[in-house]
Amino acid sequence: MTKILRFVERSANAGSSEPKFGILESENVIRAVASDPLYAGISLRDEVFTLDEVRLLAPVIPRSKVVCVGKNYADHAAEMGGEVPKQPIIFIKPNTTVIGPEETIVWPKESERVDHEAELAIVISKICRYVPRDKYKDVIFGYTLANDVTARDIQKIDGQWTRAKGFDTFCPLGPWIDTDFEPGDQAITCFVGDEKRQEAKLSDMFFKVPEIIEFISSVMTLLPGDVILTGTPAGIGPLQRGGRVRVSIEGLGSLSNQVSK
Amino acid sequence: MTKILRFVERSANAGSSEPKFGILESENVIRAVASDPLYAGISLRDEVFTLDEVRLLAPVIPRSKVVCVGKNYADHAAEMGGEVPKQPIIFIKPNTTVIGPEETIVWPKESERVDHEAELAIVISKICRYVPRDKYKDVIFGYTLANDVTARDIQKIDGQWTRAKGFDTFCPLGPWIDTDFEPGDQAITCFVGDEKRQEAKLSDMFFKVPEIIEFISSVMTLLPGDVILTGTPAGIGPLQRGGRVRVSIEGLGSLSNQVSK
Repeated sequence: MTKILRFVERSANAGSSEPKFGILESENVIRAVASDPLYAGISLRDEVFTLDEVRLLAPVIPRSKVVCVGKNYADHAAEMGGEVPKQPIIFIKPNTTVIGPEETIVWPKESERVDHEAELAIVISKICRYVPRDKYKDVIFGYTLANDVTARDIQKIDGQWTRAKGFDTFCPLGPWIDTDFEPGDQAITCFVGDEKRQEAKLSDMFFKVPEIIEFISSVMTLLPGDVILTGTPAGIGPLQRGGRVRVSIEGLGSLSNQVSK
Repeated sequence: MTKILRFVERSANAGSSEPKFGILESENVIRAVASDPLYAGISLRDEVFTLDEVRLLAPVIPRSKVVCVGKNYADHAAEMGGEVPKQPIIFIKPNTTVIGPEETIVWPKESERVDHEAELAIVISKICRYVPRDKYKDVIFGYTLANDVTARDIQKIDGQWTRAKGFDTFCPLGPWIDTDFEPGDQAITCFVGDEKRQEAKLSDMFFKVPEIIEFISSVMTLLPGDVILTGTPAGIGPLQRGGRVRVSIEGLGSLSNQVSK
């Protein structure tokens, strides 16, 4: 069970604020590793930190793209007024949307309604194209959690989803990449404050991870560090200005963020 | 008049196939520069090449994104069955779409109709957000030509444009970045084989470059090497399998590509 984290030390006199990589050794202990495990494998260092000594960052900075699948849970497609499409509908969030756990989602002045969308995220391990569905594991580095934050009013105005989903801070990722997680019937939930808004099973996804990898890689080359968001279940709704949002996936972890006022 | 090129030597025994950067010193002579002028400025080297000794590459590899403006010429918006929207409609092509001059646009098996869209492209020079329209020049490195290749049938099926415009090879860029070009009433044209398909003036753009920079940077942080496509005029139509397509902008240059069979 390898959980890969990216972090900076909180201590003001820590010397360097360079991001470090580490693995979660036990519930509260991070062991530093020499460099980004995505490119360099895991070589353990002597340094250890407790979780409260560090500030977690997004566990991956997508070098080129975050590719997202829309309307991939039937109940969500229905609440958006449609059905799951015959083929996945894809869109792209720029990598400038990515923030880490506990970072602040900034409510854009152009929007009156900014929504949460809890999602399972895939981190790609290697350059690949035309990956057959039965080989999907060969190109997956691991899984993390995502919040596909969406300015719902702008999504309706534009028709195209890029702007509504492309504002800086609109893609919280984290808290870690789990390289051993296997999507099955785990619960995925989203809380806004204390209110449960979304609850489903990952197995409710219409297009499953193997088909998603096959489909997207039939269109575009995937690169190491690319991230794929797999769609959100029903229950989308507005964030609260100044409030908090938490995405959880059973067996994978929880991703919490602040929302600006 | 500085035109920046990226290229590899054609000669088989050239030793290294590392891409080099250079500037066009005269109509046919490239002088090599030490490294990417986008990051390192222009420091001339002694090496010179003639154009036929090299193979040109896309003059920039967008580190993160190609942001595109849709329906930005009234006559094109009309042929697509609509009007220019009140605010720019934006979408993203992944950087894996980028190819250089003379490289081959690969016709995807999923599509029966792949179209040309001639466009002026902006290359961003620095990290920026919230750029006011009167400061737009501060963040522009230069201009080049683009072909926003689009699988028109897939665009209609999906509604979202990302897949239709996101296939590998669907964003020819080049032949160079002109750091002194100023968009005005120059002609923009597109030829498929010998047939003129598109002809307009850059001044026919509805949202001009300063407004485009202001608008996109109000949504997302722009990074050095990001590319912005400014929309296409009327006259879009299908490429020909095995044929050629050429985008030209008066005073800027011509970008030609093969199409696969």
